[in-house]
Amino acid sequence: MTELSRIEGDLSRFSINQMTVKQLLLPELVDACLELGIPGIGLWREPVQEYGVVSAAKLLRDMGITVTTLCRGGFFTAIDPHARVAAIDDNKAAIDEAATLGTDTLVLVSGGLPEGSRDLSGARERVGDALAELAPYAAERGVRLAIEPLHPMFAADRCVISTLAQALDLADRFPASQVGVCVDSYHVWWDDQAPTQIVRAADAGRLHAFQLADWVTPLPEGVLTGRGQLGDGAIDMREWRGYVDQQGYTGPIEVELFNEALWARDGREVLRETAERFVAHAC
Amino acid sequence: MTELSRIEGDLSRFSINQMTVKQLLLPELVDACLELGIPGIGLWREPVQEYGVVSAAKLLRDMGITVTTLCRGGFFTAIDPHARVAAIDDNKAAIDEAATLGTDTLVLVSGGLPEGSRDLSGARERVGDALAELAPYAAERGVRLAIEPLHPMFAADRCVISTLAQALDLADRFPASQVGVCVDSYHVWWDDQAPTQIVRAADAGRLHAFQLADWVTPLPEGVLTGRGQLGDGAIDMREWRGYVDQQGYTGPIEVELFNEALWARDGREVLRETAERFVAHAC
Repeated sequence: MTELSRIEGDLSRFSINQMTVKQLLLPELVDACLELGIPGIGLWREPVQEYGVVSAAKLLRDMGITVTTLCRGGFFTAIDPHARVAAIDDNKAAIDEAATLGTDTLVLVSGGLPEGSRDLSGARERVGDALAELAPYAAERGVRLAIEPLHPMFAADRCVISTLAQALDLADRFPASQVGVCVDSYHVWWDDQAPTQIVRAADAGRLHAFQLADWVTPLPEGVLTGRGQLGDGAIDMREWRGYVDQQGYTGPIEVELFNEALWARDGREVLRETAERFVAHAC
Repeated sequence: MTELSRIEGDLSRFSINQMTVKQLLLPELVDACLELGIPGIGLWREPVQEYGVVSAAKLLRDMGITVTTLCRGGFFTAIDPHARVAAIDDNKAAIDEAATLGTDTLVLVSGGLPEGSRDLSGARERVGDALAELAPYAAERGVRLAIEPLHPMFAADRCVISTLAQALDLADRFPASQVGVCVDSYHVWWDDQAPTQIVRAADAGRLHAFQLADWVTPLPEGVLTGRGQLGDGAIDMREWRGYVDQQGYTGPIEVELFNEALWARDGREVLRETAERFVAHAC
């Protein structure tokens, strides 16, 4: 395996979301980040659990890599009481894991419509109910919950929170130190209200996470794995970085891509390319 | 060919969009509508041109079928001056065709981002520029332009107008008799602001067309042909019909489905099923 040379350019705000290069085992990812000069990783629960949460926490701490977020909690929209209790319990576990991993931010994907339901507003209300149970639990452990609005094409089957305005309306019920939002360019780029809502989020201290991915067409079947490499699509990355930076956001900028073509390639090469694209398109 | 028996239920507001059963030739579609008691058809330019615009107008008039809309004008977002002139000319032809066919409504799909462009707001502005040229031309011919916001998943490649609010902001620049909106459940169902915007549209006299389709997942590759049969998906059809009817809308309710599975079936059977689903889910 060839050593990766460090990237020319400012990676101080860059973080790689683990799903972007899920073909790399956690220690491989950490090694590649160290070689390239990447300071942060956004982790996912499943591969971290596989490696061991405590071991992962130690590895990242020892290597000086910041855990920028943990993805993901959520899936709060079940109607069945047992399923709701199970979801709350699972989210408490996710909060505990975030605390162990040393990140202050758990990203939430709210969940879609339950099987057979057509009640979007009812589902959104149940997200609020779940947050009321979880926010104080998270706060006691030093973890903030970041509601991520997902693109409206996921409203039925993945996330009934489709806009930053909806996410902030929910977050407003709680202290800013407990509940905020995750802004992801892929999910909000079409929304002419999003820049105003970013100002609202920042003013309220609720801008808890920021992620980049590009919008490429045609979308694949199921649309989940269509997130494009930075620079390949329709989104002006500097424009969106500008929206958060102009509001005083100085936190990490995570690149999170779900893309079959990228997953089929050598993970170290994809990581290098992603860091280079970040420098070329978002710095 | 078996005669289709008339549908039990109130089809007085029902209109079938021609694309739903594009496997039927126009005279076949007209015959089937007469047999089933369907009073209106939303036409598409290409199959009408193939049949002959004047002949189609005569056929529908003679058979007493109302042409509820003509789909579609639009695609206004080109930057190249020649392409822009060509788009304006083509839309003038569409307006002439609508007048000949005896419909008062031309539905507009605004167009996506030009190749290589990332400037959504610039593209939206060019839609407004094109409307300024076309609205008076249409008004002289008794045709209203209905801007159709398309689901945000089409923002890059098909329609930069993604919400009713955006469509109405554009329409507001013109008299209500010239420019309004087309509300399609498929495109706006996720939007918690849509009901308020329907009130706004109705109050301003800009509710020019109303269409139904259901949201089914998983979306197919390219997402265009994923429009679901009424009752198969996540949208409460009565809820959305209620939003327009409660504002005094008494016009046609067009069912417009693009769906490979429906296109692969016998068109007359699909037409019957669609009318039955309308009665079962939207009456």
